[in-house]
Amino acid sequence: MKSDIPQLMIDRNLDAVVVYGGTDVSSDLAYLTGGAHLGEGMYLHTRTGGPVLFSNALERENAQSTGYPVRLWSDFPFGRYLKEADNDMMAARLARWRDIFIEYGVSGRVGFYGMSDMGYAWRFLSALEQTMPDIKIVGEIPPNLFAQARQTKDAREIEMMRAAGVATTAVIANVFDFLSGHRAQQDTLIKPNGGPLTIGDVKAFIRLELARRNLEDVHEHIFSQGRDAGVPHNVGRSDMPLQLGQTIIFDIFPRDRTTGYFHDITRTIFLGYAPDELAEKWLDVKRVFDEVMASIRIGEPGAKYQMMTCELFEVMNYPTICSDPQTMVGYIHSLGHGVGLDIHEYPRLSTYGPPTPLQPGHVVTVEPGLYFPDEGWGVRIEDTIAFDETGAIVNLSDFPYEMVIPVK
Amino acid sequence: MKSDIPQLMIDRNLDAVVVYGGTDVSSDLAYLTGGAHLGEGMYLHTRTGGPVLFSNALERENAQSTGYPVRLWSDFPFGRYLKEADNDMMAARLARWRDIFIEYGVSGRVGFYGMSDMGYAWRFLSALEQTMPDIKIVGEIPPNLFAQARQTKDAREIEMMRAAGVATTAVIANVFDFLSGHRAQQDTLIKPNGGPLTIGDVKAFIRLELARRNLEDVHEHIFSQGRDAGVPHNVGRSDMPLQLGQTIIFDIFPRDRTTGYFHDITRTIFLGYAPDELAEKWLDVKRVFDEVMASIRIGEPGAKYQMMTCELFEVMNYPTICSDPQTMVGYIHSLGHGVGLDIHEYPRLSTYGPPTPLQPGHVVTVEPGLYFPDEGWGVRIEDTIAFDETGAIVNLSDFPYEMVIPVK
Repeated sequence: MKSDIPQLMIDRNLDAVVVYGGTDVSSDLAYLTGGAHLGEGMYLHTRTGGPVLFSNALERENAQSTGYPVRLWSDFPFGRYLKEADNDMMAARLARWRDIFIEYGVSGRVGFYGMSDMGYAWRFLSALEQTMPDIKIVGEIPPNLFAQARQTKDAREIEMMRAAGVATTAVIANVFDFLSGHRAQQDTLIKPNGGPLTIGDVKAFIRLELARRNLEDVHEHIFSQGRDAGVPHNVGRSDMPLQLGQTIIFDIFPRDRTTGYFHDITRTIFLGYAPDELAEKWLDVKRVFDEVMASIRIGEPGAKYQMMTCELFEVMNYPTICSDPQTMVGYIHSLGHGVGLDIHEYPRLSTYGPPTPLQPGHVVTVEPGLYFPDEGWGVRIEDTIAFDETGAIVNLSDFPYEMVIPVK
Repeated sequence: MKSDIPQLMIDRNLDAVVVYGGTDVSSDLAYLTGGAHLGEGMYLHTRTGGPVLFSNALERENAQSTGYPVRLWSDFPFGRYLKEADNDMMAARLARWRDIFIEYGVSGRVGFYGMSDMGYAWRFLSALEQTMPDIKIVGEIPPNLFAQARQTKDAREIEMMRAAGVATTAVIANVFDFLSGHRAQQDTLIKPNGGPLTIGDVKAFIRLELARRNLEDVHEHIFSQGRDAGVPHNVGRSDMPLQLGQTIIFDIFPRDRTTGYFHDITRTIFLGYAPDELAEKWLDVKRVFDEVMASIRIGEPGAKYQMMTCELFEVMNYPTICSDPQTMVGYIHSLGHGVGLDIHEYPRLSTYGPPTPLQPGHVVTVEPGLYFPDEGWGVRIEDTIAFDETGAIVNLSDFPYEMVIPVK
């Protein structure tokens, strides 16, 4: 939580933190500004002086809306620094930051955060350390200070995430109704004009539904059929007609425009009917999903449930990534991930994650799946769940698990 | 252009380049993959061996669609590295990259690109240089190699950007029609139900129009009225009713979902009528816009047109950022910026930009404006223009400059 930041700074023995960048790409900065947009912002927080937010003049009101004390970059006019540095861009930037750091008494161990070009970050921070010998640069391996703060949601955040779930599941309900409203002809869904209904048509409908509910399709949603459903991140081919009796993975993970929080949910459906053999696969995934949902609890590390999922699938004789890290079929990804202002956050339900136990305020996906592209199918079932203050599970994806969507 | 990359590597004396990250935030990587989505990708290009693209198994087909040779991260299984490194995350990552670099013969000067957490990038690259003494890390000050390649669009890119312009201006036309379809009551626009039409209502209409045309409102568009129009990046207050006779800045800069290219255009309008004094301000900005559009040409640096714009406004007795870098009123930003896979690219029509001259293939905005929030107004007029192969201007924002939108 945001209120953890001072303690997280102490834990890391940091005298100051700097979060630099634009709020559109730096979700750590967006977290701090509460969604106020800054093209070039800097959050500077010293243990002695507290926080200050830098903004350009064009966005000063956005910056002021955060409640932090605001400084303008133009108080340190770049033109002057550039002139004094004989148009040497790097020297001008260093001199500007040096003056800012001196004015705010920044020294000692300083943690740097925010998204930046990799090579530039390395060059700039290396030069900054040279320029200011009283500063020790600290860079963190993920999960960093902000990832740690962000992974525990407060009650207000969970309410916002619940609202995102309500809006997202309303989209799914309308998409299923839209599909049901079509008739089939020789196992292909047909539009009123007689042409086949394609995945592209469904995606266009989904985008309108999202826009109507103020949801953003930041990362393209997945609506993949048959063998494409067997490749987890295949988003689906627009020109493919919808067929009855095939697995269709519908994985949608929009962002609420108002709050900035994501929701993530997957349903696998069949149109019209489910062939017995594929229905069995669907039920296998659903059984694993149900077992994990019944078992998962606070106090245990996320890795435990990834291991449990692998074991359950292995008992059913499916290959898994746990026994063969290079397998392309069977269960081939991790069980879940944190969700928040990024679609993938901490904690991770994966064997590689940090061994910290699940806690109240954590919000994670649970998404077991099976993938056999050469056999023409894939199945994944996913909900986003939160652990409330008492540790109880709150399912933010309140939507039924239908296997078959009837058509006309 | 992409075909410039080998020469740009030679110019910088680079033996290899690495572009690491996700295509959603690393537009340099999205440029290379031609829009194919990768959550964790790496483009590795050695001068001797050419390019190779790393992807995770879930996204292997996305990676293969680019035409580059593809390797999977799972060929260097992270679990094994983690085990060998006794669960030390950094040591495991370094060992993995070391093995990859050895296999692909990466040595000498290596440029690193792609968006990453600033502190992590510094830490990881510092450690990598320690681990591999035959590698010299190169980080670039913007504009880096890819910014240079990207700022020159090829004919195919310009066609895609033209299509984005056509779709965007179609949205504006429908928004103006939507506004015109409303009647006024005591200078306030009224909805059919009798309530006031608010900026929020217009924004909801805009979002649907964008979704219908497969455009994404990645950065929230600006629809700001009166004093809010006087603060350039104020996006507009949702609960504000639309008034006749006020300046309304409508600045829209969506991304085409199919191609990933942005378009950027601004119109300032009055609903119903323009008061004489404000109409004069509008005309002042339009005159500057027209003069710049008539003058701008290849072979000249972008800074020249920023200076020209300041001089024109100063002759009209407006304050400008050129004579007072800290002014909050008058002309307070730069004239324009490159547009492409990012909304802000090179070249810049600004005094701080690199002095490279404008060239065929450059695509820039031209957007003079005046801002006086305390007087309750702001005006900006903006088009996106391209210089074609002959150096002629192609206006990608083919849309009239209406001052007044009539209402019922």
